[in-house]
Amino acid sequence: MKPRLRIRWIGMLIAACALLTGGYAQATAATGEQAGGAGRDGLDVASMGSFYIGGHQVELSGLPTRTIVFSPGEKPTKVNPNGTFEAGQMYVQYVKLEHPRERWPVLLWHGGGLTGATWESTPDGRPGWQMFFLKAGYDVYVSDAVERGRASWARYPEIYRTEPFFRSKREAWQLFRIGPSYGGEGAERKAFPGSQFPLDAFDDFSKQFVPRWATNDAWTQAAYDALVQRVCPCVVIAHSQGANFAFTAALHAPDKIKAIVALEPTGAPDDAPDLSTIKHVPQLFVWGDNLDSSPFWRGLIEAPLRYRQAAIEAGGTVDMLSLPEHGIHGNSHMLMMDRNSDEVAALVSAWLTKTLDPQPVAKAP
Amino acid sequence: MKPRLRIRWIGMLIAACALLTGGYAQATAATGEQAGGAGRDGLDVASMGSFYIGGHQVELSGLPTRTIVFSPGEKPTKVNPNGTFEAGQMYVQYVKLEHPRERWPVLLWHGGGLTGATWESTPDGRPGWQMFFLKAGYDVYVSDAVERGRASWARYPEIYRTEPFFRSKREAWQLFRIGPSYGGEGAERKAFPGSQFPLDAFDDFSKQFVPRWATNDAWTQAAYDALVQRVCPCVVIAHSQGANFAFTAALHAPDKIKAIVALEPTGAPDDAPDLSTIKHVPQLFVWGDNLDSSPFWRGLIEAPLRYRQAAIEAGGTVDMLSLPEHGIHGNSHMLMMDRNSDEVAALVSAWLTKTLDPQPVAKAP
Repeated sequence: MKPRLRIRWIGMLIAACALLTGGYAQATAATGEQAGGAGRDGLDVASMGSFYIGGHQVELSGLPTRTIVFSPGEKPTKVNPNGTFEAGQMYVQYVKLEHPRERWPVLLWHGGGLTGATWESTPDGRPGWQMFFLKAGYDVYVSDAVERGRASWARYPEIYRTEPFFRSKREAWQLFRIGPSYGGEGAERKAFPGSQFPLDAFDDFSKQFVPRWATNDAWTQAAYDALVQRVCPCVVIAHSQGANFAFTAALHAPDKIKAIVALEPTGAPDDAPDLSTIKHVPQLFVWGDNLDSSPFWRGLIEAPLRYRQAAIEAGGTVDMLSLPEHGIHGNSHMLMMDRNSDEVAALVSAWLTKTLDPQPVAKAP
Repeated sequence: MKPRLRIRWIGMLIAACALLTGGYAQATAATGEQAGGAGRDGLDVASMGSFYIGGHQVELSGLPTRTIVFSPGEKPTKVNPNGTFEAGQMYVQYVKLEHPRERWPVLLWHGGGLTGATWESTPDGRPGWQMFFLKAGYDVYVSDAVERGRASWARYPEIYRTEPFFRSKREAWQLFRIGPSYGGEGAERKAFPGSQFPLDAFDDFSKQFVPRWATNDAWTQAAYDALVQRVCPCVVIAHSQGANFAFTAALHAPDKIKAIVALEPTGAPDDAPDLSTIKHVPQLFVWGDNLDSSPFWRGLIEAPLRYRQAAIEAGGTVDMLSLPEHGIHGNSHMLMMDRNSDEVAALVSAWLTKTLDPQPVAKAP
């Protein structure tokens, strides 16, 4: 990190911490213009709804007919699995404020094996980042990427080339760095000391895992790119696998994405693209705790760190927020669900304000 | 239908038509208390979020390990498909108003092969019934039932017993009574004359189809029952396959469901339950147009009509709103997406007001 960037970043952090000292509610009240004018905790919503974007028609033929009873009491129905279907679309849900205070909406892009539910309530029932950024004055778009959640999924191996895989609780516990050991054979699962994840809600959290495929990235990227063309200029906050789609989306539409916040990015564009085309797009990487706990994570962060180095060498800005280095300990991979999720969101929000508002980002050519 | 019921229903329809004459916006404005105090079209939202309910842990063992590259640039990872998973849960999203004008929330339950997206924006981008009933002053819960959307789905045949099936565009076109013929071999697809479905948006609509299973009804019912215990007393508006879950939910919790609106119900409890236990729960069946167009639909409506007859014989009230019999023509199975969706919603809303408000429903024992 260049010294000048580090100084700016520290100053911004001090500002953020000042906000946090008084609590987020007071911090927003202090602005004198709450998003929810109707009450301290409410929102003035202009509209909410959803749409589908991306995707294309595919055709199946030659598959045998089946017989199905749709609902109890109904007669059996012959179902012909052949025909035309849509595949490759994504689902997007928006909430627009009556009086947004920020110029650009925030797009929240989930990680692998997850859906937009990531950003709604936390598994233990607190308001999630969707609500946080609405209250911070942004219009917010939450999406389900191709193959998951309300985006639906397509038959395999006829349309998707491979079969999906399902994340077990053990894998999630370790991969999401809730703790070092899931136990088993009578042993209790073990969390990292001081874990910020709401441990009692882990089983509820695992209800939102969705199957994933390793072969749909091109369709997913195309759908994200179409979303960017439809609703941006915007800020993208992307988690884990979602970050790579965000980096690539910016490369595909350098004038549309005004900032990227990558929460624990895994993966990055791997064919050495020219990153000077997005050097005007400020980026922030946010990292939780215990990254050194496994060879797996030490390997995972290599690609995004190489990407960051290349972006900086191309003249870009990629700030780093390692939470433990700043005295915030115990965060898992699921930063937006951790017990201090509002604290982390406030740091991200402060970075966005500092980065985008006082000195507007240079317009793209 | 008993004569007295018919008279009440006609009176209510007249009231509803009087409201409609002035348009829905004027009708709500006339109440002097809009849900969206901040502006004519806005909403004062107290909170929005989501949760998962139902489901249980399942365990898989003995399946072979696979190797996966999660994100481009990452190293291959060994994936063990064995372990513990959650299955049978559903996803629920809520929007609560700062100042609800109605006593009970509305729960919107989608039909088969669909998700809660049914109730958000229509496929051609108009506000859907979620927004309508929020503006009408209800808190609204939109859910994705077990196996679809953000509820996720489980591996088969190890957890779900069968494979899913996927609805083709042709099947949807005919089953949802958009039109009599999907064409093919160069022929154009043909809509019913005067179809209310937004035909240009049919392909976009088909992006929200999700695979369905015929073997998960018990888990789905259990999750709906758990939802009712958590958030009711309430009103349930259920579509198609969802109506049977609503009828059964009322039988399981007669004190919790204050009214059921069944939009083109398909299927009904088929083992002759004692319907006198829910005789205090008023019900409304709503039917679109062209039901006589196919033997399939003539068969489909038999079970709900038998159920209605039994409910009436047990002392209950099951009003019927056949839209074409009341001069509203061209509605498809997807009433909440049709071009006159607000008109149909206003009729439902008027029925609820008439049924629940002036003479509150008798309390359950």
